[in-house]
Amino acid sequence: MSTTARTAALELFAHHQETLDRAVQAIAERGYWSPYPESLKQYPEESVKGAQSAFEAQLNRHFSLVGSQSVGRAGSERSPYGFDLGVTYDQYDADALLGRMQQALPAWRDAGPAARVGTCLEILQRLNALSPTLAHAVMHTSGQAYMMAFQAGGPHAQDRGLEALAYAWRAMSEVPEAARWIKPQGKQEPLVLDKRWHIVPRGLSLVIGCSTFPTWNTYPGLFASLATGNPVLVKAHPGAILPVAMSVKVAQDVLGELGFDPALVSLVVDTPDAPVSQHLALDPRVKLVDFTGSNAFGNWLEANATQAQVFTEKAGINTVIIDSVRDLKAVARNLAFSLSLYSGQMCTTTQAIYVPRGGIRNGEECLSFEEVGQTLAGAVRSFLADNERACAVIGAIQSEATAQRIQACRELGEVLLDSEAREHPQFPGARIHTPLLLKVDAADRAAYAEERFGPIAFVIATDDTEHSLRLAAEVIGEKGALTLGIYSTDEAVLDRAEQLSMEVAVALSVNFDGGIFVNQSAAFSDFHASGGNAAANASITDGAFVARRFVTVQSRRHAVP
Amino acid sequence: MSTTARTAALELFAHHQETLDRAVQAIAERGYWSPYPESLKQYPEESVKGAQSAFEAQLNRHFSLVGSQSVGRAGSERSPYGFDLGVTYDQYDADALLGRMQQALPAWRDAGPAARVGTCLEILQRLNALSPTLAHAVMHTSGQAYMMAFQAGGPHAQDRGLEALAYAWRAMSEVPEAARWIKPQGKQEPLVLDKRWHIVPRGLSLVIGCSTFPTWNTYPGLFASLATGNPVLVKAHPGAILPVAMSVKVAQDVLGELGFDPALVSLVVDTPDAPVSQHLALDPRVKLVDFTGSNAFGNWLEANATQAQVFTEKAGINTVIIDSVRDLKAVARNLAFSLSLYSGQMCTTTQAIYVPRGGIRNGEECLSFEEVGQTLAGAVRSFLADNERACAVIGAIQSEATAQRIQACRELGEVLLDSEAREHPQFPGARIHTPLLLKVDAADRAAYAEERFGPIAFVIATDDTEHSLRLAAEVIGEKGALTLGIYSTDEAVLDRAEQLSMEVAVALSVNFDGGIFVNQSAAFSDFHASGGNAAANASITDGAFVARRFVTVQSRRHAVP
Repeated sequence: MSTTARTAALELFAHHQETLDRAVQAIAERGYWSPYPESLKQYPEESVKGAQSAFEAQLNRHFSLVGSQSVGRAGSERSPYGFDLGVTYDQYDADALLGRMQQALPAWRDAGPAARVGTCLEILQRLNALSPTLAHAVMHTSGQAYMMAFQAGGPHAQDRGLEALAYAWRAMSEVPEAARWIKPQGKQEPLVLDKRWHIVPRGLSLVIGCSTFPTWNTYPGLFASLATGNPVLVKAHPGAILPVAMSVKVAQDVLGELGFDPALVSLVVDTPDAPVSQHLALDPRVKLVDFTGSNAFGNWLEANATQAQVFTEKAGINTVIIDSVRDLKAVARNLAFSLSLYSGQMCTTTQAIYVPRGGIRNGEECLSFEEVGQTLAGAVRSFLADNERACAVIGAIQSEATAQRIQACRELGEVLLDSEAREHPQFPGARIHTPLLLKVDAADRAAYAEERFGPIAFVIATDDTEHSLRLAAEVIGEKGALTLGIYSTDEAVLDRAEQLSMEVAVALSVNFDGGIFVNQSAAFSDFHASGGNAAANASITDGAFVARRFVTVQSRRHAVP
Repeated sequence: MSTTARTAALELFAHHQETLDRAVQAIAERGYWSPYPESLKQYPEESVKGAQSAFEAQLNRHFSLVGSQSVGRAGSERSPYGFDLGVTYDQYDADALLGRMQQALPAWRDAGPAARVGTCLEILQRLNALSPTLAHAVMHTSGQAYMMAFQAGGPHAQDRGLEALAYAWRAMSEVPEAARWIKPQGKQEPLVLDKRWHIVPRGLSLVIGCSTFPTWNTYPGLFASLATGNPVLVKAHPGAILPVAMSVKVAQDVLGELGFDPALVSLVVDTPDAPVSQHLALDPRVKLVDFTGSNAFGNWLEANATQAQVFTEKAGINTVIIDSVRDLKAVARNLAFSLSLYSGQMCTTTQAIYVPRGGIRNGEECLSFEEVGQTLAGAVRSFLADNERACAVIGAIQSEATAQRIQACRELGEVLLDSEAREHPQFPGARIHTPLLLKVDAADRAAYAEERFGPIAFVIATDDTEHSLRLAAEVIGEKGALTLGIYSTDEAVLDRAEQLSMEVAVALSVNFDGGIFVNQSAAFSDFHASGGNAAANASITDGAFVARRFVTVQSRRHAVP
């Protein structure tokens, strides 16, 4: 190991320690906190103004990173807003790249937790400074509207990275570096050993990104692994490489400047025709796999990458149960936002809304099932009436498959609100579709109890709230979910929902009818996924998310008196 | 949930909190500490004097526990000291038992961490009081000599149970119960949510015990799971049921007295002809599996019990590398004790001893390979010369298969020290055999690089220490190990060994030539297994050992102003 690199990294640790300490406090208290501003106004004016051109300067050219020998180029990203990015990336000989990263591991390991965490904190700070530009890259790969791309892809993603770092730091700090063990022996001299403990990484870490949240879903695994000593291979989704490549470049810059091998964080790109994740995930050198994406591949990884610790976030059936409300209009406005935001392409967006077929109480009045459905549909319709505002909320549909799914799903029930194609004010070629809301019966499980990724939701007629709770338990028990919303004015029903949330290990949001939404997840406060149902085998982020990324190796010897 | 049970359990928590707090301090500092005395003198005289008859009173009768409906009886334990225990145990309808435990889960979960941990602390204290009697049950199932059975099966096992409890308590305490989340909104009113977090157990926990350490290897999984809310099914090894049954009875007594379902900790027994572990481990209700035993079954569990979190401790090739010493006689005395203790039936006992074929430096002189081998053999011979003392150290061979293995292995190399059958002073029928020490060449990997469970060790001639280090890395890299000993007077070699220990994630003991032995593992200080090589997929006990046993489920609602 280069002592210089370690020393320089320790200086970064000292420089950023206040942020780290505050983050460690935040994960223990879980109130509101964030070090990365979510308002563009708090970023330097020149970086905001120059973001667009900085983004454009990267288009239609080759993006260079450190890796192993290039064996070809890939990259055919197309913005959901209707143009090709034209960026290419190197493809490396996988064996050579993994070999190089394996060789870089001992120096990174021996630098120790503080040097590694200091390095990661610097990477995060530079990513934060890059947020306005990163936002364009996130927008034009995921399809998120600019403001969401900025917040979710910038500061919120950095928050989650820092949160993972705080967990990693806390977990490593809980292992002492050394201790003297003195065991009394009655009247004889005590037995005395000097012991040392080393944090030892598992090996190489493979982080497989997704197309909808290329940074937010990638940073937790990346920083949790890197901080605990594991070199990280980031495999970007072929549809969303650029924001990942920009992030890897920041990491490589920091590592290289310090004197570590920049390839400790490396990018892997592939194409839909020749995917490489399976091959990489089974490489015996790969000991950690983080994945966000489909059930099919997530389940395959869990079953087959048995040489590795596997962390997956997959699909589920996010659910809302409406029992009774004080003000249905407020509830409908709240749900309309959730259903619309980023066209329902969030892993937390509600798909199944259970409502008793006999209707619900709304304050002092009773509303029929039909009225509830119409009120929800009307709320979405009026929320998206202004096209410019609509486009700034719903963004674009990331993939053509999702756009086609909206059409295909129209047959699954009675259309309460049809999906409309919209034209974006700045991007005429953008793939924009408003939400589809369907009415189905509880018996139509084949329709609503499969994940329909995209802006597709179902209002489901149940016998009564009892029935809604039972169905939710069954469907989430089988398919998983990240979010459950409950609306009731009856504390007994809320207690039942709280029990249900524990039984199927899903996060519960109660009576959200104001400015907070069931699909929002705040770093340092909300645990994203519980890891206890089929939608995800791990939470991002908690203690279990980091604990398995390293082992502790001890050495002990007689103390020199 | 019975509020009375919870209240009573919280009183136990308060009563034992000082012990818990000290244990949490101990796992953070990892110096010497134990709350459970390892000297019989510190136990009440009547309990020590009455232990033998209390043990005998349990023989040749039925051992009753709470379970589900009995569908038969099993139990054919035979003491390695030469007599049948004659104890029978109920076999339950597995589906009914798992159903009952599943039903008991919500009340146990909702009692909360402090009530659960208070209950566990009381169980541990009662187990401690029972230690003198438990020791007889451990002795006459495992074959350990009485003093070791008392220490390893009593206080040391309880230490490991308490250590797991301390980790579980710390991990659960790191999740706040509730918080108010206040997000500023510029000039508008802040967004305010009240959030709650619940520790939610994974489900049923299956702990599969082994015959050699029926309590020591069972308690960590048992207490880690129980404290985090998971009902625990303990499947005892058919050869070592009684100490497990006695432990389960203590747990059931405490649970029942408090008003919880005693079946929250249940015993399952089977027979070698009709094993039940596979069936239980695949039950969808079983979400946690702890296992100590063979590679074959451990690997099967890891590959097949994919609905569960699986923690295994399996076999490995524990290793000593001799490069140079100050005093070979002291080293040989030290190793003689390790090789002899409990006839090498510890998961930490050295099997492979690498020595350069050109000999080693011993202080100022050079010793040939032959002299090193003879010195080791002589040290074991003279250590075991006194038969009574020998029997008090080596105990009995747990299984006939191990006794036969000693004979079979004599063909694997040149005999440096032959194994002798011995007669026990009190138990003429005891199965007692002294260690077998063989000389082989480094090329004979098929001989020494397979686990030879029992008092069987190899002195392996290598080209030089470089070769020894390389072989150790290869063999441990492939087969795993829990312990590595290094003997060298050269700091550069010790540094190499420290690097090696990190590369293959094995605990290193340096130049042990006094009263501490490579096969000893002290609770609250030594991590037992790293979880980073093939000998074990988890450490007992560290943060990762508990973190996956529960998930966190949150609920959030608008704060009432």
